Amino acid sequence: MSATVSPLAPKKYPKMPAVEGVRIATAEAGIKYKGRTDLLAMVFDEGTTAAGVFTRSKCPSAPVDFCRQNLSGGKARVLVVNSGNANAFTGKKGRETTRMTGEAAAKAAGASAGEVFLASTGVIGEPLDAGRFSHLLADMAKEAKPDRWTEAAKAIMTTDTYPKLATATVKIGGADVVINGIAKGAGMIAPDMATMLSFVATDAPIDAPVLQALLSKGVGSTFNAVTVDSDTSTSDTLMLFATGVAEKRGAPRIMEVGDARLGQFRRALNRVLKQLALQVVRDGEGARKQVEVTVTGAKSARSAKRIALSIANSPLVKTAVAGEDANWGRVVMAVGKAGEPADRDRLAIWFGDSRLAFEGERDPAYSEAATSAYMKRDDIAIRVDIGLGRGKATVWTCDLTKEYVAINGDYRS
Amino acid sequence: MSATVSPLAPKKYPKMPAVEGVRIATAEAGIKYKGRTDLLAMVFDEGTTAAGVFTRSKCPSAPVDFCRQNLSGGKARVLVVNSGNANAFTGKKGRETTRMTGEAAAKAAGASAGEVFLASTGVIGEPLDAGRFSHLLADMAKEAKPDRWTEAAKAIMTTDTYPKLATATVKIGGADVVINGIAKGAGMIAPDMATMLSFVATDAPIDAPVLQALLSKGVGSTFNAVTVDSDTSTSDTLMLFATGVAEKRGAPRIMEVGDARLGQFRRALNRVLKQLALQVVRDGEGARKQVEVTVTGAKSARSAKRIALSIANSPLVKTAVAGEDANWGRVVMAVGKAGEPADRDRLAIWFGDSRLAFEGERDPAYSEAATSAYMKRDDIAIRVDIGLGRGKATVWTCDLTKEYVAINGDYRS
Repeated sequence: MSATVSPLAPKKYPKMPAVEGVRIATAEAGIKYKGRTDLLAMVFDEGTTAAGVFTRSKCPSAPVDFCRQNLSGGKARVLVVNSGNANAFTGKKGRETTRMTGEAAAKAAGASAGEVFLASTGVIGEPLDAGRFSHLLADMAKEAKPDRWTEAAKAIMTTDTYPKLATATVKIGGADVVINGIAKGAGMIAPDMATMLSFVATDAPIDAPVLQALLSKGVGSTFNAVTVDSDTSTSDTLMLFATGVAEKRGAPRIMEVGDARLGQFRRALNRVLKQLALQVVRDGEGARKQVEVTVTGAKSARSAKRIALSIANSPLVKTAVAGEDANWGRVVMAVGKAGEPADRDRLAIWFGDSRLAFEGERDPAYSEAATSAYMKRDDIAIRVDIGLGRGKATVWTCDLTKEYVAINGDYRS
Repeated sequence: MSATVSPLAPKKYPKMPAVEGVRIATAEAGIKYKGRTDLLAMVFDEGTTAAGVFTRSKCPSAPVDFCRQNLSGGKARVLVVNSGNANAFTGKKGRETTRMTGEAAAKAAGASAGEVFLASTGVIGEPLDAGRFSHLLADMAKEAKPDRWTEAAKAIMTTDTYPKLATATVKIGGADVVINGIAKGAGMIAPDMATMLSFVATDAPIDAPVLQALLSKGVGSTFNAVTVDSDTSTSDTLMLFATGVAEKRGAPRIMEVGDARLGQFRRALNRVLKQLALQVVRDGEGARKQVEVTVTGAKSARSAKRIALSIANSPLVKTAVAGEDANWGRVVMAVGKAGEPADRDRLAIWFGDSRLAFEGERDPAYSEAATSAYMKRDDIAIRVDIGLGRGKATVWTCDLTKEYVAINGDYRS
């Protein structure tokens, strides 16, 4: 949690309704931070199904290993998240911590060991002592309340400058269901995985395999399309829980991915995921501008995404945006280095609505003044047409500022 | 050229001997910079052979296209380099500029059109008017002198804070030959290509195919093992010229790559390339520390290099070094995100001689105080043992500082 709030923070936060079957408690365990909550317990009613996507890092954290193992059961009763220590690269001690925390959480929630999910975020390589917080879980499970989503989002923050929340209410087979989500950023964020931590819950009755299919599909154009610094966390975790309580109100149980009654839910879920992912970008360390990069006309969608990420991860493009400089030459450079099919003489580049480059050279109609004015905005859109095919993709990033360097030059000390 | 010189600049510059068969002239053409030289002409005696490696960017500059075409002849009589404008992404105008410059240079040096080589460095996307400088070439070729290597290095600088020079004198078959090289950085530098611009010349009599083989091999562990910001230039060019004048002094003409008499020359060439490549890193934009990243125990050398580059290009690792923080957790993260075979529980990490992590967790013997003292040095060595095989690689980079952001946030304006 930072003293200064990102200039890109939401102007107002959504009012989060309860999700039936979910109760929440937070606590100050003092793991690293003082005077703030750093522990979250989310307790789920019996019958809750779970889905998750995790970091593709070859060095995942102990809680990621733990969740992957328990996810095979597809059932969840309790989620415990701490901030301040990632319990990553902590060897045998780390596994011992997840085992002890898992046992304490299961006992607190009256669950079996396989229905517990854990996540940790913070410094890597410091042993995390379960004794510091596992004794708090019994009381937390007891006094957990449904209306604490904002508190939940706050308890999992690290270098985030604001809590990240999204909600949607949609119909499944005539019955209202709620989708609530929280997330945290704000550095070590890159696609090809989930973001660091995000948890979404719904009262819709959806079987675990369907839930997993929805999440795995939804992540591609949302969390896996954002990048702050191209660095992939060891702890990235995105989980989706469905309590199924809406079944009592007439929502049909969804047991097949192809069920036509899922349409509205699927779109709402993707919207919630995208809102959370964009909030992560907008709170990227040191960020002052959001940058949307769209690539069209590539050989394939995959090729378009690679080119878009090459642009979005280029330090030179990101520093130019920070300097409010429409330096499209650096966009050319980033297209060129992506290694994907491209033909210099067919490229066209837009910043906002202004076309700066066309057919391999500067657009004769390009107005430096108009573009300079555009670059002063908070939200910058860069579009590149490759001119070769029909592949397209959009990714989101933020600018690279001196504050990013300051935040990360003395995070550990 | 910057007002403040990098703290990592060489304490003294080498005295550059002449390379027989090479004459040099520089001029103030006023292409972008005022009050400094920005044009270099290097004139070669008849019989000079040439080799080159160029950017792998899909959007190469017009001079790169021009050089690639002429290199097939293997012969060189004149090299013309300008700074201040890269003549990249300049479409038909750019090709017209290289054609006109090439003609003027050939006429000035009494060469055929295919014996001319061109390079340009500076802003991308601005048309470069050959009329601004091509009329200067005739006089430059006339008054070119052998002893102007330092002036040559200065004329090609852009955001560089010092000129980059290296020299070696070695024997081929009993006769002394000289190898001189110059280079320029300092941003948009990443491996998988040459650096932005580097030119090396020797009086050794070496046939063009042999010269090309030596250069292509030598670049792997030198220029292609350095990265400043992971951004690949559109203009990267490394050329090697051999005048062959040493043949008069008894040096044998080398016509086969396997010629045993090349041993000393090959080692000296690689040393010159490495010295130039490291000078580029040490003048990386905003750099205050050089970072050497060595990966051992990987599945293969290729895998080791990918892991090493993942570490060297990680913004979080680079900002930690800038903050003098031995944040080895971020090294774990960078190993994990490389996508190469790795086993968290076999990893070991050293900063200098201190082992910080061992067998997947913090080394019990690790001294924070000793490591903090080490991090204050100018030259930081990070070593990672993957514990899986025998592949190893070393790459070099610099730290990521607020100055990098400042330099690149207002370069164009």
